[in-house]
Amino acid sequence: MHTSIASVCLSGGLVDKLHACAEAGFDGVEIMDADLIAAPESPEEIRALCERLGLRIDMFQPFRDAEGVSDDVFADTLRRAEAKFEIMNRLGTDLMLVCSNVGTATIDDDEVAARQLGELADRAAVHGIRLAYEALAWGRFVDDYRRTWSIVQRADRPNLGICLDSFHILSRGHDPAGIEGIPAEKIFFLQLADAPALDMDVLSWSRHHRLFPGEGSFDLVDFMTHVVRAGYTGPWSLEVFNDTFRQTDTVRTAAHAQRSLVWLADRTATANGWDDGRLGSAQPVSALDFVEVAGTDLAEVDELLAQLGFAFEGRHRSKPVRLWSAGSARVILNEQVRHDEPRLSGIGLQVPDAAAAVDRAIALGSQKIFRRTYEGEQDLRGVAAPDGTQVFWSSLPAEDSWLQEFDGGTEAVGGLVGEVDHVNLAYAWQDFDEAVLFMSSALSLHAEPPADVPGPQGLIRSQVMRTPDGIVRVPINLAPPTAAPPARHIAVRCDDVFTVARRAKERGIDHLRIPANYYDDLSARFGLSEELLSSLRELDLLYDRDAEGEFIHFYTRTIGDVFFEVVERRGGYDGYGGANAPIRLAAQRAMGR
Amino acid sequence: MHTSIASVCLSGGLVDKLHACAEAGFDGVEIMDADLIAAPESPEEIRALCERLGLRIDMFQPFRDAEGVSDDVFADTLRRAEAKFEIMNRLGTDLMLVCSNVGTATIDDDEVAARQLGELADRAAVHGIRLAYEALAWGRFVDDYRRTWSIVQRADRPNLGICLDSFHILSRGHDPAGIEGIPAEKIFFLQLADAPALDMDVLSWSRHHRLFPGEGSFDLVDFMTHVVRAGYTGPWSLEVFNDTFRQTDTVRTAAHAQRSLVWLADRTATANGWDDGRLGSAQPVSALDFVEVAGTDLAEVDELLAQLGFAFEGRHRSKPVRLWSAGSARVILNEQVRHDEPRLSGIGLQVPDAAAAVDRAIALGSQKIFRRTYEGEQDLRGVAAPDGTQVFWSSLPAEDSWLQEFDGGTEAVGGLVGEVDHVNLAYAWQDFDEAVLFMSSALSLHAEPPADVPGPQGLIRSQVMRTPDGIVRVPINLAPPTAAPPARHIAVRCDDVFTVARRAKERGIDHLRIPANYYDDLSARFGLSEELLSSLRELDLLYDRDAEGEFIHFYTRTIGDVFFEVVERRGGYDGYGGANAPIRLAAQRAMGR
Repeated sequence: MHTSIASVCLSGGLVDKLHACAEAGFDGVEIMDADLIAAPESPEEIRALCERLGLRIDMFQPFRDAEGVSDDVFADTLRRAEAKFEIMNRLGTDLMLVCSNVGTATIDDDEVAARQLGELADRAAVHGIRLAYEALAWGRFVDDYRRTWSIVQRADRPNLGICLDSFHILSRGHDPAGIEGIPAEKIFFLQLADAPALDMDVLSWSRHHRLFPGEGSFDLVDFMTHVVRAGYTGPWSLEVFNDTFRQTDTVRTAAHAQRSLVWLADRTATANGWDDGRLGSAQPVSALDFVEVAGTDLAEVDELLAQLGFAFEGRHRSKPVRLWSAGSARVILNEQVRHDEPRLSGIGLQVPDAAAAVDRAIALGSQKIFRRTYEGEQDLRGVAAPDGTQVFWSSLPAEDSWLQEFDGGTEAVGGLVGEVDHVNLAYAWQDFDEAVLFMSSALSLHAEPPADVPGPQGLIRSQVMRTPDGIVRVPINLAPPTAAPPARHIAVRCDDVFTVARRAKERGIDHLRIPANYYDDLSARFGLSEELLSSLRELDLLYDRDAEGEFIHFYTRTIGDVFFEVVERRGGYDGYGGANAPIRLAAQRAMGR
Repeated sequence: MHTSIASVCLSGGLVDKLHACAEAGFDGVEIMDADLIAAPESPEEIRALCERLGLRIDMFQPFRDAEGVSDDVFADTLRRAEAKFEIMNRLGTDLMLVCSNVGTATIDDDEVAARQLGELADRAAVHGIRLAYEALAWGRFVDDYRRTWSIVQRADRPNLGICLDSFHILSRGHDPAGIEGIPAEKIFFLQLADAPALDMDVLSWSRHHRLFPGEGSFDLVDFMTHVVRAGYTGPWSLEVFNDTFRQTDTVRTAAHAQRSLVWLADRTATANGWDDGRLGSAQPVSALDFVEVAGTDLAEVDELLAQLGFAFEGRHRSKPVRLWSAGSARVILNEQVRHDEPRLSGIGLQVPDAAAAVDRAIALGSQKIFRRTYEGEQDLRGVAAPDGTQVFWSSLPAEDSWLQEFDGGTEAVGGLVGEVDHVNLAYAWQDFDEAVLFMSSALSLHAEPPADVPGPQGLIRSQVMRTPDGIVRVPINLAPPTAAPPARHIAVRCDDVFTVARRAKERGIDHLRIPANYYDDLSARFGLSEELLSSLRELDLLYDRDAEGEFIHFYTRTIGDVFFEVVERRGGYDGYGGANAPIRLAAQRAMGR
């Protein structure tokens, strides 16, 4: 696969963009006319830079409003095109994108369009240039790839083909199966973009909300299946107009973009049983091995875990690391990896083949991380998530491996028996799509539909990433631009949250206080018994219910950037008490966090 | 007019919101159920606080999914309602908003809806509570105010009326004229929101993009005309769901909200020739009196103005202030108002009645400002724009007033004769709507359709505010969240920008360099003569053309937070060279700004 990206996807000047593309591992670029025009470097300098960076200039784009026009307008079109052909020769690229006419078209006639595109192609041929004709979803007359293909056939020039763009095709609901009927040699170029399902005008949708593959709701695997079946072997190029990516770090966005193509190639190959583009198989998670909290001084977290009923399992024999457990839930407190404020720093996953999981994540562009280990200790292998959270994989049961590195646990059992229910992460708004793609590609988690939660400092977007079996559940919170990302937390599931909460209270835990008005509302909403209500109220428990079951939970205070939650699920309730999130956020704010 | 606002419009906790509403001068509030539920204060405490703050609790809202349901669901509805009636009694408010059913409605029958609302009203009556039934634009069956009114008539209860919401009516394109047919005593409440013209699903539009009156594209003056003609004399209340206002400063947003109601009352009264609600008449601007740049050390700006061809008009006789002119364009350099970095700090406007203009702006909630003046000097009266830019009004010709306070000008005429073409301001993204409302209300400027300009650090939104005659033109730039607001600038219009640019170059001006690629593209786009092209290129001039005429312009380097532009308009060209903005932004970035 030859990977490419349109320069418009990234922020910065053209030279910054080209460096970032090369660094991210792209094979080529599409150079946007506007990016070149604004650049202080000449086309010859850009050409030389691309050569030094090992980037092929796959396409120059766009040329607009070419066809379906009156003769006098077409004469001006040819003049415009000649000037751009010269620029392209100076740039050293031979392919120009010609978008279907939006602005100047007055003649809705394929014969006219074919004649004019044919003439344009003949002029281009003089300069050794080929034209890729693309149907924009909002083209004045031509807005369907099947019609561009029909016009290209009619024009019948060797240097005139079509460009396919997944956005323009899928946003209009056009069936991509027809791509298979187009000869591969006439598909001159392929542009890929994903997009969220939005019910808005297609032009605004395209200009502001495109996403990289894997981040939206288009079925790009199906789309690429048709493209590959057609025999297309040219560049897979990204063209993503997105307000966020236009302003985020150029290098980071380029790496993120490259990951999306690797992911798409792997998914397409896997779905079709093809070898080409396939990574090692995704590793199913059999258990959440541990969750780690790191900080310079975690004594307060020790105290909190003890109050919750975690059992102290001992200290690591060579590092300033402690282990607490509650049934199968293991929390590691690490004072070696230093953060001034305690924070949720890592998670460990049990998989059949840890090495394969790490290799796959690295092939998907994740940053490899290393932990200091000594002879005879388990080799911790993993990668960093975009927010710095470390993800480790292990193939050995914990009992047979790293658990043996801890000793000195007290006999006392704290009484909390459970498992990790979910791990809640938080991202700044501009890093959200990158986080979703990391989790879906490197961790093979699925995205559930997002929700907006009103908080006192603005709407917080909540996006749950999970395995279908629920072994790994990672709700992600996205802070609004003016606010710092909310604290992260670890939720432990147990069978009797009332007892856990009562014991924790007896042990003097500083838990999150829930306002009395909340219980008045619970009573109004659900008609709970006075007995249940008074227990909830007494223990500051939150409650939710749906058609499948009930959810009862409470939160600890926040220490640094981390807090804990204990939950009980009854019946088939599969949510996270989202209706209670505004209450939590307001209560946390009232407690000064 | 009794002004009111829904607590959901503002950020923060309920107590913060109430304080901000009182401070902004609101007479009442709608308390959102969710805000109360999340508050640590009891209903009684909120009631007492509102009394101390002089705020009436005009309404409790919303009660959802009441009508059009099966009998068993309705039994649960009554139970839910009874619990809320108790809360309302504790809060001391007697009006509840009942939204048309979205979630549980299964029966599309006005008879059933009327029977159930009637029964709900009878239950409410026991608690002394009235119900205001509102049609949500996305109601399951009831989504039109004319239908709620028909149902309310059918139910025929004294304590059951309707609530009108401008968003729900105008977003659906329903004719508000029908409001006049509803008896005033049955219009229990009025909610106001504006919104931009967006082609998207109405639910998302409503939840994320509502604006305060005067900031969107709804004809709220017409809407209010019908409401007032119906005889409605109750609260004018704002209900604006907006992602930005949810996260911006509570006090500032409340003041901004209050301004929008004062503006709407004035516009409605003025349009209808009514006295009630009317402010002093808006003052037409006859000339831009001056533009002021302030900073601790403005020597570099002096040099730049001299290079541009401004004439030095002298120093103020009592303050560290200097005056430069170019025809009728006057630039004041003020080293008394201190900013570390030079910045565009103020503008002066000539109007028939300056005192009336100031009074009007202050009535619209603007902050009055004072300048240090001495006996015999002109009293400068004005207000601060939301970004701190100061706006002054004067009724005296400058020659007869403040110009006489300057002396010591040199005889040399710099050669630049012109007038101020436009003053470009910049705002952080979250202050944009507030800026537009300030300019439209206090300065009586009109908003032109906004445009997005791609810059190297993201899309910059450009919004031109102007008088129809073009005497005052204020393009506003809105920075993306991750970037600082772009620098502001002053544009001077002249008759021969080539000569001005050439002389400035001879005087060694450090102007903005335009890349050669830009001129290659100009040639391609417009087919300019080689002679014109080479003049443009030589002088780093930018060029634009439309059907009406041409626009040629250049920029100086940026000093601190300010730069200058010189423009020439040919024919009827009425724009600002928007197509060149990406080039300018990239060139400014290349020059380190």
